[in-house]
Amino acid sequence: MTDPSDPGPLPAPVSILVEPQLGENIGAAARAMWNFGLSAMRLVAPRDGWPNPQAVAMASGAGRVLDGAQVFDTSAAAMADLHAVYATTARPRELTKRVLSPEAAMREAASRIAEGQRIGILYGPERAGLATAEIVLASAIVSVPSNPEFPSLNLAQCVLLLSYEWRRAQGGVVAEELVTNKTGLAAGEDVTRMLAHLEEELEAARFFFPEHKRPSMQGNLRNLFRRSALTEQDVRTLRGVIRALAEGPKRRR
Amino acid sequence: MTDPSDPGPLPAPVSILVEPQLGENIGAAARAMWNFGLSAMRLVAPRDGWPNPQAVAMASGAGRVLDGAQVFDTSAAAMADLHAVYATTARPRELTKRVLSPEAAMREAASRIAEGQRIGILYGPERAGLATAEIVLASAIVSVPSNPEFPSLNLAQCVLLLSYEWRRAQGGVVAEELVTNKTGLAAGEDVTRMLAHLEEELEAARFFFPEHKRPSMQGNLRNLFRRSALTEQDVRTLRGVIRALAEGPKRRR
Repeated sequence: MTDPSDPGPLPAPVSILVEPQLGENIGAAARAMWNFGLSAMRLVAPRDGWPNPQAVAMASGAGRVLDGAQVFDTSAAAMADLHAVYATTARPRELTKRVLSPEAAMREAASRIAEGQRIGILYGPERAGLATAEIVLASAIVSVPSNPEFPSLNLAQCVLLLSYEWRRAQGGVVAEELVTNKTGLAAGEDVTRMLAHLEEELEAARFFFPEHKRPSMQGNLRNLFRRSALTEQDVRTLRGVIRALAEGPKRRR
Repeated sequence: MTDPSDPGPLPAPVSILVEPQLGENIGAAARAMWNFGLSAMRLVAPRDGWPNPQAVAMASGAGRVLDGAQVFDTSAAAMADLHAVYATTARPRELTKRVLSPEAAMREAASRIAEGQRIGILYGPERAGLATAEIVLASAIVSVPSNPEFPSLNLAQCVLLLSYEWRRAQGGVVAEELVTNKTGLAAGEDVTRMLAHLEEELEAARFFFPEHKRPSMQGNLRNLFRRSALTEQDVRTLRGVIRALAEGPKRRR
C-alpha cells in the first residue's frame, strides 16, 4: 500500500535555506543550484517574505528554481519528509556528529537517493550560520575544507560547491579527453610517412651531422612528434611545412 | 648554474585574469582564491586600470592577494615564465586540445608543481571568455561539468571551483570523521553495562513479553544502541534516563 501523503522519491537533494536575509543571495543560490542541475529549493522563514523581487532579479535564467520554491515556518517542518539532511557548517563545537567532506556527503546522498530516500542540504543564514538546534536535526555535517586563515564562504558559494559535488557524484564527469574537432587523430603510419618525409629533407640539408649523433638526433625528433597526439590535420600541416621549408629557398633564388 | 632571472618554484598555481572588466569581480576572485589558500594573481590589461578601489572594497579579508597582484599587457607576457597553463573555457570549437575536469587539472598541476614546474590557471573576461588565440597558448583546457541547460558561471565562481579543487588536490581533506567534543567514544563495556542496566529495568517492568519474543526484542534494542557510536557522555545521559524513567513514578507515588 502506498501512503497517499508520501511525496515520493526525489531525483536530487533539496536545498534548504534557513532564514536567508537578502533576496539577492536567494537568487544567487538558485543560480548556483541550477548551474549543476539542482532545482528543489525550500526556504525557512525568509526575512523579507516571499516572493522576493530581488531574488527574482538575481536568479535570471534560474527562475524555475524560485518558481518551485517552498516556504516553511521552521527548519523542522522543512525537513519533516526527508530521510537525511546534511548541515553545512564548520566543525561543531558542542555536538557529536559525523563530519563529511562535500564530496563524501554528496556521494552518500547519491547512494541514499538511489535507494529511494529523500535528502536535503541545510544552509544557514548569511552571517550567523546554522544554530545548534538546527544542526542537531541533521544526519551529518558537511564542512568545506577551506583556508583556516580565511574560511568565509558566502551562502551562494557554499551552495555552488555542494551543487558542484552533487553533479560530480552523478558520475559521467570525464577526467580527461582529447577533443579533436573536424579531424581525427592521425594513424601511426601517417606519422611514420611524415617523419620519413622530414628526415629525407633533413638528410638533403645535411642536418644529421656529425654522423655519430644521427641516432640520438633522429630519436629525439621522432619522439617529439610521437608524443604530441597529432591529428590528421596536424600531419597535413606539418607535411606542408616541410615542403615549404625545403623548397622555399630554391624558389626564391 | 642557476639562472638569476629564474623566479623559482611556486607553491601553488598562479591565477591569471585576462582583461577583467569589473573591479568587483577581481575582488571576488581574490576572495575565492584566498578561501582555498591561493595567493598569486596576475592581471592582463584590466579594463579599468590598476589598482582598482572597487576590487579592494570587494576583496575585504583577501587584500593580500590584490597587494601582490602583477599586471601584464598581454596574456603571452603573463604566461611567459610558466611551464604549463590551464585555460578555463567550454570545450573548444576549433582546436585540438586536451580537456580536463577541474579535479584532473588540479591533480596534474599539483604533481607538476611537486616537480618544480610553475603553473597557471587562465580565466577569460566576464562575458566573452577566453579568445582562441589565448587558448592556443595553454597546455590544456579545464572545463567545469555544469548543467548544459544553464552553464553560465561567473568569473569568481569559476575561480572558486578551481581553487577548491586545488585545495582538494593537496590531500589531507578527510572524507569522513566523527567529531566528539569534550568527550570520547564510549568503550564497548560501557555500552554493555548501560544495556544491562536498561534490560534489568525493562525486566522489572515486564517489557519482554511474550517470552518467545524476548530474543528478538533484546536483539533489536542492543543493535539500536550499538550502531549509534555512543560517546561516554551519551552513555551517562542514557543511564540517567533509564534511572529517571524507572524510579520517577515510584517517587511520585
